[in-house]
Amino acid sequence: MKKLINTPDTFIADALYGLALANADLRVDHQNRIIYRAEPTRAGKVGLISGGGSGHEPLHGGYVGLGMLDAACAGQIFTSPTPDQILEATKQVDAGAGVLYIVKNYTGDVMNFDMAAELATAETGVEVATLLVNDDVAVQDSLYTAGRRGVGLTVLLEKIVGAAAEQGQDLVTLTALARDINAKGRSMGVALTSCTVPAVGKPTFDLPENEMEIGIGIHGEPGRHRVPLGTAKEIAEQLLTPILADVDFTASPVIVLLNGMGGTPLLELYLMYGEVAKLLKRSGITVARNLVGNYITALDMAGCSVTLLKADEHLLKLWDAPVKTSGLRWGI
Amino acid sequence: MKKLINTPDTFIADALYGLALANADLRVDHQNRIIYRAEPTRAGKVGLISGGGSGHEPLHGGYVGLGMLDAACAGQIFTSPTPDQILEATKQVDAGAGVLYIVKNYTGDVMNFDMAAELATAETGVEVATLLVNDDVAVQDSLYTAGRRGVGLTVLLEKIVGAAAEQGQDLVTLTALARDINAKGRSMGVALTSCTVPAVGKPTFDLPENEMEIGIGIHGEPGRHRVPLGTAKEIAEQLLTPILADVDFTASPVIVLLNGMGGTPLLELYLMYGEVAKLLKRSGITVARNLVGNYITALDMAGCSVTLLKADEHLLKLWDAPVKTSGLRWGI
Repeated sequence: MKKLINTPDTFIADALYGLALANADLRVDHQNRIIYRAEPTRAGKVGLISGGGSGHEPLHGGYVGLGMLDAACAGQIFTSPTPDQILEATKQVDAGAGVLYIVKNYTGDVMNFDMAAELATAETGVEVATLLVNDDVAVQDSLYTAGRRGVGLTVLLEKIVGAAAEQGQDLVTLTALARDINAKGRSMGVALTSCTVPAVGKPTFDLPENEMEIGIGIHGEPGRHRVPLGTAKEIAEQLLTPILADVDFTASPVIVLLNGMGGTPLLELYLMYGEVAKLLKRSGITVARNLVGNYITALDMAGCSVTLLKADEHLLKLWDAPVKTSGLRWGI
Repeated sequence: MKKLINTPDTFIADALYGLALANADLRVDHQNRIIYRAEPTRAGKVGLISGGGSGHEPLHGGYVGLGMLDAACAGQIFTSPTPDQILEATKQVDAGAGVLYIVKNYTGDVMNFDMAAELATAETGVEVATLLVNDDVAVQDSLYTAGRRGVGLTVLLEKIVGAAAEQGQDLVTLTALARDINAKGRSMGVALTSCTVPAVGKPTFDLPENEMEIGIGIHGEPGRHRVPLGTAKEIAEQLLTPILADVDFTASPVIVLLNGMGGTPLLELYLMYGEVAKLLKRSGITVARNLVGNYITALDMAGCSVTLLKADEHLLKLWDAPVKTSGLRWGI
């Protein structure tokens, strides 16, 4: 295992230390591993909280800031944050208008965010709503999930709902918006290599030199099948076909996220974007916006994922609204 | 070799195709492998051109846009662009105020940019100035360089000189500014793994599981020495010590670039930033601004580099000016 770390035990603590030093707009509660905006939540604004296992950066800490999240709870690598952590974040970001949890559909995350919501309501009376993201068309159930996993769409959802929250929309409206986005987005990924969890010290799985795993999860959990390593054009087709079979994306323009898994260089991601864009055009789908880069990763895994989101004028306007986080920034 | 490509022969062409589709603000001359801003250079504005071998993305194509470069000439992987390419870019971006070439100090790049400058002057009379970036303190000469190599400082220099060019400063002023920045910045890198050039199909060099290469170049050319893989804290010290021995950085605040080599995930980069920031504080150096991420890469190499730039109020103001490129964006 070759990593820029001190010890596996201090990996997350050391990384959060650096994140905090690098970003004056953030405040990090190191003991509870919570990343907040430096400024407290504006009175009357709904607080947006997300979180999950670490190892997917910039998700979620990199999306805390103006126009996106109010707080992110970081678990250990690929391990859910605890209910106590989430409860603490809830108390901190509530500004009288309630709190929305954005939760990727993994069993541990769902359970712990649910428990935190119950505790928060019981202890403080704060109103909490939860939105489960489950956009991954690869598998119905998986190693860590009942139902579909939550993956790349989470980034787009946090951006768009974050913009609406910044505008002062209420908890019911934001929850409906988040549900709408979740219904309109789909994702699928591929791994060329495994990732290596520092505490384990060796790759999570073996993937022979001439094979790839189609439909991989963001923790290295198995996908649909292993197949011979294909060309970029073939891979784009293998990722898009199940997405397009699941939802009709021809009716309105789409936002495309071509996401790197952490170990794949940008040049290959742009190349993949080109292949995906060609196929979308051929399928009669119009691309309104795109993101190409590492936005939701799996440590050092080589590979990529594709996310499509149907986006009408309303969603595009929220997408274009200013955002200032370490992971996404424009208009400010 | 596991890469998201079609064939090694079409790697760059396919990637430029995707880059162009993803960025409406860019215009790509595919035949000449030149990335331009979509809008022609404003009359009276100095044109800024950079370029070099591909494989270092987002450098340079990702830095074409408002507030940075006017054009980037992309060579094949780790191969200089040709004089003809650079000449064509020069003709295109000249808007009557001359053109500044920003060239990383590698023998092939220096030669071809020099030749292009001569051709441009002879054929068109356009005034061309050149700035060589040579910030790498690792080695005096290297496999591809006489003198020090140009590495991470190139990113900071393109940003700051780009802002000054946008303000309408003239060629002499911009050249002096670029020279000043080059004098005030230093870099050093480390590799944990080699990179793999697609056309070669295997790693450029072997690096045993328990070793790292200190002072690596951005093409995988040798550095200072191979040493046992250290902790992040030790690595930060090994990178900073030669930088701080070369220039006194205590007199004014610094801009820090903690750069990933392409295959290292963001979590490790933030961790390294924390270690670097601690050492800088202990050395009495004040950090005014920072960048943490993949900004000048070496394909899929795992590792990082550190760049420090002494930045007075004037440079910081130019640093903070709006920039809108696919690789750097703020204020707009």
